[in-house]
Amino acid sequence: MKLYPQELEQLIEFFKKLPGIGEKSAERMALSVLELDEDYLQISASNLIEAKKRLHPCCICGNLTNQEVCDICANENRDHSLICVIEDYKSVFAFEKAGNYRGVYHVLNGLISPIDDVGIEDINLSSLIKRVESLENPELILALKSSIEGETTILYIKKAFEKKNVKISRLSYGLPMGAEIEYLDMATLFKALEDRKIISE
Amino acid sequence: MKLYPQELEQLIEFFKKLPGIGEKSAERMALSVLELDEDYLQISASNLIEAKKRLHPCCICGNLTNQEVCDICANENRDHSLICVIEDYKSVFAFEKAGNYRGVYHVLNGLISPIDDVGIEDINLSSLIKRVESLENPELILALKSSIEGETTILYIKKAFEKKNVKISRLSYGLPMGAEIEYLDMATLFKALEDRKIISE
Repeated sequence: MKLYPQELEQLIEFFKKLPGIGEKSAERMALSVLELDEDYLQISASNLIEAKKRLHPCCICGNLTNQEVCDICANENRDHSLICVIEDYKSVFAFEKAGNYRGVYHVLNGLISPIDDVGIEDINLSSLIKRVESLENPELILALKSSIEGETTILYIKKAFEKKNVKISRLSYGLPMGAEIEYLDMATLFKALEDRKIISE
Repeated sequence: MKLYPQELEQLIEFFKKLPGIGEKSAERMALSVLELDEDYLQISASNLIEAKKRLHPCCICGNLTNQEVCDICANENRDHSLICVIEDYKSVFAFEKAGNYRGVYHVLNGLISPIDDVGIEDINLSSLIKRVESLENPELILALKSSIEGETTILYIKKAFEKKNVKISRLSYGLPMGAEIEYLDMATLFKALEDRKIISE
């Protein structure tokens, strides 16, 4: 005999597939679904399917969108010659929440990784090169993580635009805001020291 | 301009309605839905609706079931004269997980609460009385919380079965397993002292 009726078991299984949700939370969530309004559940159920079906990469930058061109690429008030290069579309939301970036994005959808057999053709690099070549005074901000894959990808991009009059920067490394220095890992501390900013001379 | 496409916004809103899920977790969960298989999402979406539609109270005990009589009430190996009285069906799962209870349940679906205008007729008390009267040597375990509402309900049940040869007990109060005594609230400590068990005389 099972503990939960089959319908509940299946809901629990579904919630357990979501990030950060264990057995207990999934149970609580499945039980709470029963307390939601039936009409609302109908809408949410179709949202589950629609989100997967209707969201796809923007044809310019690779960001998630329900149109051909995403809202950011379609926004004329943004600086289209300033491109922030990121690994996946989740980073777009992080930047947009920070709220002070007025350029556009380019989603690589991965990083070069010889170990995992991810080469230059497997990520959106050629579209980036084509895109940048069509711009006047382009500027690239490489917002990629500081892993071997990230560094390899940064190196490749840097080389691809050599002598092509493209301004390229990467995000600064350093202390996270509010971090206690004593608890910081050594690699971050080393980078923060190396990238230190002179504030008075 | 919104941060997320509409489909994602709605998924985030749905996940935020679930217990213990804040903005950040809801966002992570909604984004991870996009990585699930489309067929699986179809099934999960229909589960959301079916669970709500097909699960209803057992006609005997009020526990959640997809049949007329729940698995526990239908199980002949259980002791049907031993009834554990609980506030809602969620407690059934908690008891069943503990695993050593062989009786059956009665779900009150609430507690008597004059302040909230919940009277005797608003919860499943008359069905409990009828059920107990049909049994030989019935025994009730009142597993209700130690609030004013819980105590009022316990008092009412105790009175309803007075002189009717029904054995009634309530769960013991005391230290949760593994709890540090120094961090315990005073009410629990007081109850634990009052209900102390003699282990040698």
